[in-house]
Amino acid sequence: MPPIEPPLSFNPAGIELDRRQGLTRQLYQALRQRVLDGRLVSGTRLPASRDLAAALAISRNSVVRAYDQLYAEGFIEGRIGDGTYVAQLPTTPEVAKKLSTKLSTGLSTGLSPGLSTDWLDLPVSPAPGVIHSAALGLVENNHLQLPPTGPPRAFRVGVPAFDLFPFDVWAKLNAAFWRKPDLQQLCYGDPAGDARLRGLVAAYLRSSRGVQCTPEQIVITSGAQQAISLCAQLLVEPGDGVAIENPGYRAAGHAFAVAGGHLQGVAVDSEGIDCTALNALAGCRLAYVTPSHQYPTGVVMSLARRLELLAWAERTGGWIVEDDYDGEYRYSGAPLAPLAALDRSGRVLYVGTFGKVAFPALRLGYLVLPPAMVQAFARRRAVDMRHSEVSTQAVMAEFMAAGHFQRHVRRMRRAALSRLNAVLAEWPEGIEGVGPLPTVAAGLHLTVRVDSLAREQALVEQAASVGVEVNGLSSYWLPGSCTPEDQRAGLVLGFAAVPEARISQALKCLAQAWRQGLAPVG
Amino acid sequence: MPPIEPPLSFNPAGIELDRRQGLTRQLYQALRQRVLDGRLVSGTRLPASRDLAAALAISRNSVVRAYDQLYAEGFIEGRIGDGTYVAQLPTTPEVAKKLSTKLSTGLSTGLSPGLSTDWLDLPVSPAPGVIHSAALGLVENNHLQLPPTGPPRAFRVGVPAFDLFPFDVWAKLNAAFWRKPDLQQLCYGDPAGDARLRGLVAAYLRSSRGVQCTPEQIVITSGAQQAISLCAQLLVEPGDGVAIENPGYRAAGHAFAVAGGHLQGVAVDSEGIDCTALNALAGCRLAYVTPSHQYPTGVVMSLARRLELLAWAERTGGWIVEDDYDGEYRYSGAPLAPLAALDRSGRVLYVGTFGKVAFPALRLGYLVLPPAMVQAFARRRAVDMRHSEVSTQAVMAEFMAAGHFQRHVRRMRRAALSRLNAVLAEWPEGIEGVGPLPTVAAGLHLTVRVDSLAREQALVEQAASVGVEVNGLSSYWLPGSCTPEDQRAGLVLGFAAVPEARISQALKCLAQAWRQGLAPVG
Repeated sequence: MPPIEPPLSFNPAGIELDRRQGLTRQLYQALRQRVLDGRLVSGTRLPASRDLAAALAISRNSVVRAYDQLYAEGFIEGRIGDGTYVAQLPTTPEVAKKLSTKLSTGLSTGLSPGLSTDWLDLPVSPAPGVIHSAALGLVENNHLQLPPTGPPRAFRVGVPAFDLFPFDVWAKLNAAFWRKPDLQQLCYGDPAGDARLRGLVAAYLRSSRGVQCTPEQIVITSGAQQAISLCAQLLVEPGDGVAIENPGYRAAGHAFAVAGGHLQGVAVDSEGIDCTALNALAGCRLAYVTPSHQYPTGVVMSLARRLELLAWAERTGGWIVEDDYDGEYRYSGAPLAPLAALDRSGRVLYVGTFGKVAFPALRLGYLVLPPAMVQAFARRRAVDMRHSEVSTQAVMAEFMAAGHFQRHVRRMRRAALSRLNAVLAEWPEGIEGVGPLPTVAAGLHLTVRVDSLAREQALVEQAASVGVEVNGLSSYWLPGSCTPEDQRAGLVLGFAAVPEARISQALKCLAQAWRQGLAPVG
Repeated sequence: MPPIEPPLSFNPAGIELDRRQGLTRQLYQALRQRVLDGRLVSGTRLPASRDLAAALAISRNSVVRAYDQLYAEGFIEGRIGDGTYVAQLPTTPEVAKKLSTKLSTGLSTGLSPGLSTDWLDLPVSPAPGVIHSAALGLVENNHLQLPPTGPPRAFRVGVPAFDLFPFDVWAKLNAAFWRKPDLQQLCYGDPAGDARLRGLVAAYLRSSRGVQCTPEQIVITSGAQQAISLCAQLLVEPGDGVAIENPGYRAAGHAFAVAGGHLQGVAVDSEGIDCTALNALAGCRLAYVTPSHQYPTGVVMSLARRLELLAWAERTGGWIVEDDYDGEYRYSGAPLAPLAALDRSGRVLYVGTFGKVAFPALRLGYLVLPPAMVQAFARRRAVDMRHSEVSTQAVMAEFMAAGHFQRHVRRMRRAALSRLNAVLAEWPEGIEGVGPLPTVAAGLHLTVRVDSLAREQALVEQAASVGVEVNGLSSYWLPGSCTPEDQRAGLVLGFAAVPEARISQALKCLAQAWRQGLAPVG
């Protein structure tokens, strides 16, 4: 644990702000200047936004936005559960200074990020009806998060049981592709993707999800992230409202924010996204949702809510991006039809991925688009990167055509269920502040509520100290969320990443660490 | 040849424009409405922009922009050497109508394209000093061009002698990777790319190009196109001027236009981009250049011009994107140092690709960035698509580490030179209107001047009629270029795509078609 420090470790007295001008920009520039000229050295702890706002007599939001800009540009860094520090600058002050001139020009335009990264999704307006009470505290270090790299560990989120992937089959199919390549395939390809793969994906979705789509509606992407990013780039104009589930998949929010979207968090209840709150929002062009298995809460959107959401889209002319990221994993009950299968008016863009059935580093996913949109998406993809690497698409097509894919989906579903049961069987009960285990009907992760944010952070740290990855639910909330801090607390555990024996071992370590752990902070 | 039709095939009398409002948008809406309600049916030929402008008494530029918007949205289509026609709509009028409401909102903002594709790079301001005379005519069908797919043919541009790629070695390395995969590599990876590959690319560039870079400066991309697109997204704010070579690589222009850049074509003379013209431009944030082998003219930028360009960047605080797309191919003389090797002030972003040494569908390239930019580029890439597929990167790293890459570069250089010599040896001399063959010092294609645009189009069509791909130089110009039409005419031939025997055969067909061809149009 870092040493406890006084709330202000530098004197803000020298910062003079002209109240007739943008306070965020001035504060940003003042702090950046102090970093560049050495008055604020690497490792200096910055005051909490609340304290600095009070000291300067400005709004906390101005401080949060200035911090965000500095963070995005690498001038400061956050440490989970700790605070905000001046970062180690990667270059000489001269270079950083030149760069920062450019960096600052994009501040708060929200349009073209330039080197500025004001696309980090602030500012955030809480949606009307979603404000549960006045903000009791903001999670300030809730910035662009890259998924963890390194070998899979219990309980990494977003990783399937890919130790069971038939790598021997994949190796053979790859070798076969490359030994006798079709030279035609090695020139430039269709930006919408390999024609055979598009056909097989369409057939798979018709049979497994009831999505009535043609091969021409499929656009192959570099994973679900690129699919979401394309939707953002093509459907969102700067300033458009974008409704996203809160808590939700933050990387989707980043993609919409990069496109200039104004993120509006909408609460999730036991039936999914709160459509009453959504209907109360003005100017929302698009809603991003995860109906099969809400990320990260695990809620399955009810049919009534699905129809309500489709009605919203029809009424407002809005678009729905349906991310079915782990739709292959269902353990009980009849699956509900995806929005894309219920849609009667061409308002749904469906996102799917192979990453949760095969392995994340495959970077292969797809979109199912309303027919009139396909050309625009393919063209934008061509400008962005031409198309995906050829062999990955061709080998996946062969993998599907030969029946390996369908067998593997069944194998992965069984494996995930078995690993889920391993978690449920040995889960340490009675840990202070930890809520009951949920009923898990789908997906690759589960979420457990925790009494308070402080307790969540203690549990996450204690888990990390024994080499176990547990994510804090609080990190899935939008910055600036108005849900009371302690209602945002929880633990998110991916249960599929490692085999049962390692799960059992990890749970033993976890039980010990949590039972013997430090008393919760605060 | 299509039948000759009168210049106006529909009556513009019903179109009423309010001169107090944007004429482009009104015309666009009027035409779109006529397509949607069936008054303009599929296949109807639209008048030339000049004629419609005269009929409506508005500027030609307003018509060109309205046509471009309609083209970009798929309502109309251009036919090379022919005219502009109402397209076959892909969906029911109702869907198209709904979609078009959204489509139109992005018109002329140039910021976020939405489904609108006004990012097609109009309007274009000719740079001062680049205007050679009044516009004699615009190439109107010069829109987003996708590279041709299908098996390689003589004389496809942009395709190396990839029939010589050691696919057996590649197959073995792929199989080896997949048989014993490192599970760590199959989770999410570094958005900047595989660490080993970044190190090998840096070492290669140090030794082969004299670019003093560290592995940390390398960001792996999905081909050169993604590298250029990232530069556009991160360095260009909407409205920024972007200088591009004219004629030049149109797909780069599209990427900068998508980012909101205002494209400014700069002429190319025998030493490369005209820096006097560049220096006269105001508000240019960035110049995109191809110094090793100008695309498509083949000019090698002189050292004096390189230094002048670097001085421009230092003086104006501009950025230079140096696309060294075929820098491996040099046939005579000492290679000039890339701008990235001459740069003393961190203004150059260097783009390289494996596509011109291996094969295009590999989609693997890289950027060499000023150190302070790497994090921002990697973050943007993470939001766009996380990272590139794992095995392509790992296998290329092994291919380089084992010495295959360097051997293959030498093999490809020899092959390209041999194929170039096959073209030079059997080139049909004395074809009417075709200029002399150039001296080719580098690259994979050559450009021959032609007397007139009409003659160029006749030669291209005659070649196509005998199955030979020859590109018209006119298609590499920006729309709205002020260079007289006939000075834009020429033929661009890729000489490496097929073996010598097929080159010889293609040249025989070409000679016959051109000698017996139809008399030039006009």
